[in-house]
Amino acid sequence: MTIQPRLYNGTRDLLPQDMLPKEDVLAQFRASFQLYGFAPVETPAMEYLEILTGKYGDEGNQLIYRLDYRNEDPARRLALRYDLTVPLARLVAMHPDMPLPFKRYQLQPVWRADRPQPHQGRYREFMQCDIDTVGAQGRAADAEIVALCADLMRRLELPGFVIRINHRQLLAALVEQAGLGPESEATVCGAVDKLDKIGADGVRREMLAHGIPVAAADAVQELLNLPVQFGDTQLLQDRLQGHEAGLKALAELEELHRLVLGLGVPAEHVKLDLTLARGLSYYTGPIFETVLPSLPHMGSLMGGGRYDGLIGMFLGRDIPAVGATLGLDRILTALAQLKPHAQRSTPTRVLVARAFSETDTQALALAGRLRQAGIPTEIPLDGGKLKKQLSYADRKGIPHVVVLGPDEWATGQVQVKHMQAGGQEAADVEALLAAPARFFL
Amino acid sequence: MTIQPRLYNGTRDLLPQDMLPKEDVLAQFRASFQLYGFAPVETPAMEYLEILTGKYGDEGNQLIYRLDYRNEDPARRLALRYDLTVPLARLVAMHPDMPLPFKRYQLQPVWRADRPQPHQGRYREFMQCDIDTVGAQGRAADAEIVALCADLMRRLELPGFVIRINHRQLLAALVEQAGLGPESEATVCGAVDKLDKIGADGVRREMLAHGIPVAAADAVQELLNLPVQFGDTQLLQDRLQGHEAGLKALAELEELHRLVLGLGVPAEHVKLDLTLARGLSYYTGPIFETVLPSLPHMGSLMGGGRYDGLIGMFLGRDIPAVGATLGLDRILTALAQLKPHAQRSTPTRVLVARAFSETDTQALALAGRLRQAGIPTEIPLDGGKLKKQLSYADRKGIPHVVVLGPDEWATGQVQVKHMQAGGQEAADVEALLAAPARFFL
Repeated sequence: MTIQPRLYNGTRDLLPQDMLPKEDVLAQFRASFQLYGFAPVETPAMEYLEILTGKYGDEGNQLIYRLDYRNEDPARRLALRYDLTVPLARLVAMHPDMPLPFKRYQLQPVWRADRPQPHQGRYREFMQCDIDTVGAQGRAADAEIVALCADLMRRLELPGFVIRINHRQLLAALVEQAGLGPESEATVCGAVDKLDKIGADGVRREMLAHGIPVAAADAVQELLNLPVQFGDTQLLQDRLQGHEAGLKALAELEELHRLVLGLGVPAEHVKLDLTLARGLSYYTGPIFETVLPSLPHMGSLMGGGRYDGLIGMFLGRDIPAVGATLGLDRILTALAQLKPHAQRSTPTRVLVARAFSETDTQALALAGRLRQAGIPTEIPLDGGKLKKQLSYADRKGIPHVVVLGPDEWATGQVQVKHMQAGGQEAADVEALLAAPARFFL
Repeated sequence: MTIQPRLYNGTRDLLPQDMLPKEDVLAQFRASFQLYGFAPVETPAMEYLEILTGKYGDEGNQLIYRLDYRNEDPARRLALRYDLTVPLARLVAMHPDMPLPFKRYQLQPVWRADRPQPHQGRYREFMQCDIDTVGAQGRAADAEIVALCADLMRRLELPGFVIRINHRQLLAALVEQAGLGPESEATVCGAVDKLDKIGADGVRREMLAHGIPVAAADAVQELLNLPVQFGDTQLLQDRLQGHEAGLKALAELEELHRLVLGLGVPAEHVKLDLTLARGLSYYTGPIFETVLPSLPHMGSLMGGGRYDGLIGMFLGRDIPAVGATLGLDRILTALAQLKPHAQRSTPTRVLVARAFSETDTQALALAGRLRQAGIPTEIPLDGGKLKKQLSYADRKGIPHVVVLGPDEWATGQVQVKHMQAGGQEAADVEALLAAPARFFL
């Protein structure tokens, strides 16, 4: 019986052209995280089902992949990790003695039995990239994560980024000041969250469609459009007079802003944005997200906020926590759009041709020495004609080929062919090894 | 209802002290792989069950984790990846136009419903680290992978390693020359494979217990103990007279050895070892493994060989392939034993204390500047007393604490406390930033 080789719908193979930028970006993530003292953690793909159920709402429950393994005992049923937050909460509960704050990053795939939309980058398996600080309640923990996101955007060379900042309790206060009760908060925030996609008119229509009175909808939009910015919020303070929680949230945002600048983030990257809603529900304090104005349809590349009610779920008490999720796939898409020339499908910089039996031993040795010099190098493994070897370099996208002609080699020279730039040049082999970057750009 | 936070038996959380060395080693893996032109690939955790079944023998079949998802249609049943070789074969079959040779590395977890033995490092989820060259049939492909393993051992600073090399067809020939039929090959190799664990007497007992006649068992042991080495195999050639396949295998090993040295591997690291058997069955040519004589009970840290019959499984034809598996957990264990001082549980090198309200802004700014200088730095997020901050650094294993006393700060000085080495010193803050490595060893 022949088995048709195929992939499960909604999953994908990542080939070298996908993986090389992915590994580069993950290395940048790790370097930035560690500079801020975040430490790596990994948890198992398989968790007991009862650990996961009930944490993601009714809809989420349906999307958890269950394992077909010892299903007879409900307490031993297994499922695949759906996010990294519930496993973090489990881990924290199982290590009550760990020194707090606990600052961890976790870069692992998660699985959701969702309807896949590959053209929009939505898959049933995707890499989740989370950083979280557990056990610190003040604004310094929030500020540090905002500063880390800013550092990372600079490190990834994604210029002109903006980190939009808001506060869950400030949004709640503005909803109240518009004359609505707390039960309308989810509706209003759900509509405002779509502002980038459907525009102000769309937000208004959606509020009205969900039963928000016209006067209140107009009041909400007027409040959210107040011309305020960090350091200049008097108009907003006036409108929050007597609303303790709202004024407190605003003061927290100003403190957060002061700390973010104090950690070295240039002011132009940080904006107060009252319209930022971020799906909300579990956030309890400041929220933020990072966008690239040069790619307005991309949505946010990183986002997060404070959520003091989740991490203690297995302990039955609140544990303060703030975190961010980094959108790896979106960041990779943004980099591919902004730096298309940087894409590559092989790590190899040089192919040392094996075109002459007289210099074959020297070709192998030269490949070994180039590798020792830090140059990713291949040799044509099964030899063959030079033409075939050049064709392999061409198809693989290997930018340079070194040829050891016997006569030239006798004088210490090799030919360097530039496959992409075109042309070729003679090079002294010792000069080549001493400064390979001069020949292999 | 409270849910008891717990882990599925045979799985584990990897905490910072586990993950920091793991990430370091994986970064070394990737750097070495890329130097040789191996490119990264990832495949989904979930494969169709029919892709996986029948590939790992009856026992393996039982150990595949199946998903409880749309099980009604047998062709759509899903399972978790059991290794990385079958997914590679599937991927190769789905990309018939890829330029060959295809050199890929893959670092991903696999899952096996095996009996866990955590004290021996056996888990139901573990990271598999494979490199394979698909589509090259000559010895150069084999040699390159051996050379890569040697480079990696040097890069990991695991000195004195030995790469033992043998050939599947040479073993077969020796079994025949001992007067046994091909049906005895698996028995003999299975016994010889245990030599390190049970000794020569044990191997002999095991052969006899499996029905190998005494004379043949003695002949096998005599042949395997012939005093031969690369470049000096006359005794073996004499005993293989007339055995074409055996002599061919020996010639292939000599060619492999020549190429490995040609690629720059020092001769002392490479040994011909007729007793190397490596579980066998799917190997078809040269086989090898890397051991550390200083840790004799560790077993092999890396191992592999040529297996020309597997990768074409979905295409119904043979595709030449050679590869190696790197034992990440064993390598981490070896490093922990050989370099216990290098273990750490935080990436953070410096805690900038926030002990004085007068210098709090400066403390934040200094933390930001240390991070820009590449020094992993933390700040005490929720402040508190200096004593508490020092205790946090101590418990986390942060080696240095910088304190900004207001009077000292006024003269451009800070105190640097060395938590592990003990003692403290005054430092000019600009000197500190210019050469942080001088203060934070």
